[in-house]
Amino acid sequence: MKDVRKISPAVIRRLPRYYGFLTRLMERDVWRVSSKELAERMGTTASQVRQDLNNFGSFGQQGYGYNVEFLHKEMQYILGLDNQHTMVLLGASGLGAVLVDNPHLIAKGFSFVVVFDYDPKVIGQTVGGFVVQDLADLESYLENADDCPDVAVITLPNKETMDASKILAKSEIEGIWNFTGVDLQMPKRIVVESIRLADSLATLSYKINEDAVVDAIGTWDVW
Amino acid sequence: MKDVRKISPAVIRRLPRYYGFLTRLMERDVWRVSSKELAERMGTTASQVRQDLNNFGSFGQQGYGYNVEFLHKEMQYILGLDNQHTMVLLGASGLGAVLVDNPHLIAKGFSFVVVFDYDPKVIGQTVGGFVVQDLADLESYLENADDCPDVAVITLPNKETMDASKILAKSEIEGIWNFTGVDLQMPKRIVVESIRLADSLATLSYKINEDAVVDAIGTWDVW
Repeated sequence: MKDVRKISPAVIRRLPRYYGFLTRLMERDVWRVSSKELAERMGTTASQVRQDLNNFGSFGQQGYGYNVEFLHKEMQYILGLDNQHTMVLLGASGLGAVLVDNPHLIAKGFSFVVVFDYDPKVIGQTVGGFVVQDLADLESYLENADDCPDVAVITLPNKETMDASKILAKSEIEGIWNFTGVDLQMPKRIVVESIRLADSLATLSYKINEDAVVDAIGTWDVW
Repeated sequence: MKDVRKISPAVIRRLPRYYGFLTRLMERDVWRVSSKELAERMGTTASQVRQDLNNFGSFGQQGYGYNVEFLHKEMQYILGLDNQHTMVLLGASGLGAVLVDNPHLIAKGFSFVVVFDYDPKVIGQTVGGFVVQDLADLESYLENADDCPDVAVITLPNKETMDASKILAKSEIEGIWNFTGVDLQMPKRIVVESIRLADSLATLSYKINEDAVVDAIGTWDVW
């Protein structure tokens, strides 16, 4: 009988950070880590760390802490980073061109297999070893591909993203890595993970300006 | 007498998304929006939206909803996006080169004023109109600049990031936009906003593989 526990979104959000921290420990030849050290690095408590990691089975030992390599390998498995994933890139200039050339993606099992763009100046050019295909052909590509890519990476402008998302919604794509400002509406079977540069910049701006603004807002209430 | 309320981090996190959504409404010539519509877009409730926006004063009117342009302008002010900010770029190739050329940053008042890199092949090259400076000169630049830049944008490898962060910690920089995997330890007066590409990829990977993994983990408990 399986005990399939529901892992909370908050824990899931922290997993990649545990994994990244463990990766950097291994790079520094550190092979043992306590829940206290992990907690300090994560900005949380040792008890929270133990609770988080207990979601996935017991890896720690009292008085010894965690074996970094073992925990790293388990995390890699849990995150699915030991699987191979194929990707289609939509948007081949700027950020797209940087991603297609990024060796870290391949090291994590994520490989591009085809690249599309909407811009006639970019279509037909070679980007990261791929001849850029016409975005107008995306639908027929996805319909006719022997193996549909697992992931679509989108770095298109908003309008082109909206158009492409309708085609992706009908495809067998499993996930989207979304670098655009569009809130993608997808069927439930297609997971969406977004990197929102504009939101992040606005957050930075808010944090820098926070004190001045809270003071000013405070004064409004007087009037 | 000022009523300086503490705005919760959860609300702050949502503000940039409100702002982005309002921007896209204006692009589509939509000038009025209800808390219900905002809530659907944000994946929350109308009551949550009204509560969020009440943190900043009352902008809505019963039966009419929110005036998009007015709310957008107020949000812009609250987020500090009507201010001008100067930026130093650390890391001029790849993602750095994409950022330095990005017109959206300038439109939001964030302008690069100087660009550094550690790579002898990149130093002296022109990137986005800037002659790339030697990262070894960062400390003396920050000490001698008439106006210290407000923000440092970091796209360096981890080791160079660690070295640069020690110099930044002693400078008058107000904020860091961190695109690296490093957990930056900064004095409290320097705010850090991080874009973690590796964490985001790991989250995507987790979401795609989730069902299979939860099943497998479940079975471990039997043994």
